[in-house]
Order: sequence, then C-alpha cells, then structure tokens
Amino acid sequence: MKELKKYLLLIHGGVGTILKENMTSAKEEAYLEALERAVLAGEAILKASGTAVEAVEAAVMMMEDSPLFNAGKGSVFTHDGKNEMDASIMDGNTLNAGAVLEVRRIKNPISVARQVMENSTHVMLAGEGAEQFAKQQGHKPVDSSYFYNEARFQQLQLAKQSEEILLDHSGENKSMEGNMENGGRKLGTVGAVALDVHGNVAAATSTGGMTNKRFGRIGDTPIIGAGTYANNNTCAVSCTGHGEYFIRHVVAYDISALMEYKQLTLQQAADHVVHEKLKNLHGEGGLVAVDTKGNYIMSFNTPGMYRGIATARNKCKVEIYK
Amino acid sequence: MKELKKYLLLIHGGVGTILKENMTSAKEEAYLEALERAVLAGEAILKASGTAVEAVEAAVMMMEDSPLFNAGKGSVFTHDGKNEMDASIMDGNTLNAGAVLEVRRIKNPISVARQVMENSTHVMLAGEGAEQFAKQQGHKPVDSSYFYNEARFQQLQLAKQSEEILLDHSGENKSMEGNMENGGRKLGTVGAVALDVHGNVAAATSTGGMTNKRFGRIGDTPIIGAGTYANNNTCAVSCTGHGEYFIRHVVAYDISALMEYKQLTLQQAADHVVHEKLKNLHGEGGLVAVDTKGNYIMSFNTPGMYRGIATARNKCKVEIYK
Repeated sequence: MKELKKYLLLIHGGVGTILKENMTSAKEEAYLEALERAVLAGEAILKASGTAVEAVEAAVMMMEDSPLFNAGKGSVFTHDGKNEMDASIMDGNTLNAGAVLEVRRIKNPISVARQVMENSTHVMLAGEGAEQFAKQQGHKPVDSSYFYNEARFQQLQLAKQSEEILLDHSGENKSMEGNMENGGRKLGTVGAVALDVHGNVAAATSTGGMTNKRFGRIGDTPIIGAGTYANNNTCAVSCTGHGEYFIRHVVAYDISALMEYKQLTLQQAADHVVHEKLKNLHGEGGLVAVDTKGNYIMSFNTPGMYRGIATARNKCKVEIYK
Repeated sequence: MKELKKYLLLIHGGVGTILKENMTSAKEEAYLEALERAVLAGEAILKASGTAVEAVEAAVMMMEDSPLFNAGKGSVFTHDGKNEMDASIMDGNTLNAGAVLEVRRIKNPISVARQVMENSTHVMLAGEGAEQFAKQQGHKPVDSSYFYNEARFQQLQLAKQSEEILLDHSGENKSMEGNMENGGRKLGTVGAVALDVHGNVAAATSTGGMTNKRFGRIGDTPIIGAGTYANNNTCAVSCTGHGEYFIRHVVAYDISALMEYKQLTLQQAADHVVHEKLKNLHGEGGLVAVDTKGNYIMSFNTPGMYRGIATARNKCKVEIYK
C-alpha cells in the first residue's frame, strides 16, 4: 500500500456559549455544512501538494464568504452600523507574516493579508491605506451592502439596548464584550492552521470584530503573536475569543515559546495557556494548532467552538459542542 | 546612612546609523539636553514614590513634545504629507495594556494609550475611533500644523526622490525602511521603562512611523508583545528599530519568555534577541529593559541609540554613540 503523504488542516469558526438546546437542527446543519465546505477547500489544496499558506487562505476565504461566521460577508456591525474587518496570516517556513486591520470594503481580508506578506515589505497595513494597497493588488472594493445581514443588524439593535441598561448599572459597556447569539455569547472569528506535504506549517485568522464596538477597537486577530503565529520549529496557531486577553498574554506566540523554551508538547502548551492562564483570568476563547510532526489540538474553555479537521488518513470531521 | 529607595528609569529616542562625524556639536548638545529632560521628568515621579506607569508616560511625553524625536511633535511625514502616530503602554503589575494606532491630531499619543488601558475595557484603538475616545477623555485635537517641521518635510522630499530611483532599479521601496538623517539611517521611536519604589515595572513606546510610508503601514510600536511588554515576573521592555522584524519575532515578549521559560537573565535574553536573532536577519534595532530586581539593559545592534538612564544611586546619564 502506497503511503499517504502526511498533511493536516484544522479550522475554527468562533467560540462561545454555543449550546445544543439553543440551536435548531436546521441551523446546526447549516453550520456543519459551512464548516465542511471550508475544510474541504483547504484539504483539496493540501491533497494536491499545495502549500500550507494556500490551504489556510482557502479555508478562511470559504468562511469569509459564508454569512454564518463573523468574518467577511458575515461580519457584525460596529456601533455606527459599519463593518470593520481584521485579518492576519503567517508562514511557518519563512516567518513572514501579513495583516490588515480596519478594512471596510474588502470581500476577503485574508487574501489581502497574504498579499501584504508576499508583495510588500511590510507586515501590517491599516484602514484606508490597506484598502489602497488592496486596490493596487487587484481587489475591487465591494459595496457596504455586501455585508448587510438582517440578523447581524438585529444583533446590533439588541446590543445597543442592553448597552443602555448596562451603562445605567455599571458604567461599563459589557455588551461590547461579545455578540449575543443563540441566547448566549459568541465570540466570532474564523481561522485555520495547516501542515502541508512539504513539512511546512501556516496559520490564518479573520474577523468582523465585536457587535456594537466603538472607537476603532482592534482585537487579537490581526496581531502576529496574539491571534496568529506560525513557526516550523514549533507550531502554527490560530486563536478565537476575548481578544483583549489574547493580546495581553501574547497567546499564539506563548504556545510556541512554551514548546521552544520549556520543551512542552503542543498539547501541554495549549492546555496550560487555554485551561490555566486564560481560564483563571476568565479570558474566554480557544484555538487550533498543528506542529510539523503532525500533532494537533483544538482547545477551548467555552461550551462550544465551531471547528473542523481533515487529515490524509481520515475523512473530514466537523463539530460544534464540547 | 539612610538607604535609598531603589528605582530605575531608562529611555531611548531611536536607533540607526548615528555617527559622531555626521553630527554638529550644537545638534549633539540639543539631543543630549532633550534626553536629559525626558529622564529627569520620569525620575522626578519615581523619586516622589510615583508609579512606574506614571514615570514612563512622563518621560515619553517629554520626548513627544520635542521636535527632535520621531514621535508626537517631531513625527515624520507619510507619503501623503500627513502624520500618523502609534503608541502603547503596559503595566507589569496588572498586565493591563493600552495602545492607539494611526492617530493624527493627538499631541501626546502615549497619554491616550494610558487612558485606553485605564479607562476602557479595550487594549487597542485605531484611527478616527481612537481620536473620538481621546476627545471623550478630554484631549483637545491639535491642528496638523502643530506637527509641521521644515526638516521633516525636506526628509519626505528626499525620500520621495530616492524612492523613484530605487523603484526604477529594483521595484522595491527601500526608502520606506528608514529615515535618512545625519547622512545615515535613523529608525525613530521613543520609549521608556521603569522600576518604581513599590517594586512594579512598566514600559511605554511612541512613534511617528516611517518617512514616506504608505498604505497605513503599522510597525511594532503599538503592538503589545512586539514593541512594548511589561511583567513584574520577568521584565519591562521598550523597543525601537525596523518594526517588521520586531513584529514577526515578537521581540518584547520573547525577552520575557526567555527569562520565564529558559531562566535566562535579562542581559542574556536581550543579548540573544538583539545580537543573535535580529542581527542574523539584518533586523536593525535596539531596546531598553528593566526587571524587578533592578537589573537593566540598553542593547542595540546599530552604530548609535539615543538613550538615557537614572537610578536612585547615580546621576542621570545620557548617551548617543556606541
């Protein structure tokens, strides 16, 4: 029997209080199908000996194109009723990286992040400038109506109402911390990590931010080291969750550092960061990660995480609950 | 003899090809005076038992108010003749952090970063949104003429010319990588780290970016983990240099991780990152760092770094060359 070339792809589509009792079977089915489409898009590339960078881009693009996830088309609304998106990508072979933040008219922010990595001398481009760069790279800006989604708009109205109540009580804007969905909190962001048949890893992450967010708030998604990191010597990581905690604890790079400097396994490193460090701080979230030996982990400290996996040996598998 | 309370403050004002032969004595004197003013501003706070956070903010503000450094008033011009500034601050006691990026009308970006840390639930605010937040916090926007500086404007013209030449030859925009100054390259950014008498450390960094930069390019300065990091368990770090390398190598947090996970001393960790990792990649730059035991380091792999130090035992000292 011919030995299969080893490859691996993992994706996530956000974490939160995602409970079976709050889901309709139609909705559950729609999520599982969308996750499967994303896994298959990335896997097709790996199967054809494509690169990990290409595979994570393709998987994330598929989720950006779905209205179900908080990235690209499904991005949530800011307080002003706009959509502001962030994305980043990193190549574990070269340690090159690219990111865009606060883009508003880009259909696939992850593709522009990849172009920043490959076609510019920079790592991060922001706002209008990033959109100018995208245009130069051949992206046609989409109209803001592309991102309009009735359900997301209702979420904003709900968040604005609860904000008023919460502000009255505490002076704190709790509703900015998450998106109300399925009767619970969902911290949306999509991401993927991959190991390709050439032995290289890569990671990519994309988000539409927080419903009702103000003041140009940026989370961990576009931050290399926080939301995304990849290094052939250690691992590739894509995170989702309460971004402020992920930034302050440099989560994605911390997993790599624990492996490199403390000789922890990927599993031990991820468990320590997700189930000890972050959990002790009530930093809700999760991540997917792979290393070049073919180890992988899907770790989250919330009731659910939209996720999927494909390997050379096993059929694509997608899951939602714990 | 009464024992002096232990405190420490270190600042930097940028690195690069800063050579004595290219300096006039008047210019040298002006830099040394400005550095001393910044050190003394921070030291006054530490001497009066103020916090490390207050001290690094005060030292950085003093450099932001000087036209000599590439931050605040002295910020360089973007390709479009605008000024876009980034800043971040972190409290090693709480691991709280704040950052602003792409602000244009803020006199002291470091103060707004501190307010993001202390008066919001977020870590990073960008662009117009960050300016709205600043206004709400009592900052009066300054007119863009506040940042106008003939020397900086001439730098832009020079960079634009050399860009054209370079683009013709290589398709690469080399002039975006640094600011031509003193006949050499200067990578401007200001920063400070401090240990206060309460035993807490903090770090702060502020920049006007790169002359002739385009596309809303963001460097490491506003990135927690890359340009700025502080943790009482390890150290406080503020970086300056070629930002893209500092982001990809998560430099500030890497020093902390090497101390925490590999038991390196501050000196060993900084030497490894600045003189091995970064230097091997031609990643020009430097950093200042302190730990809670009172160890400190000023490390750079370029011919010069504007820098200064004050301790409870020794008089303030400022330097430029290697």
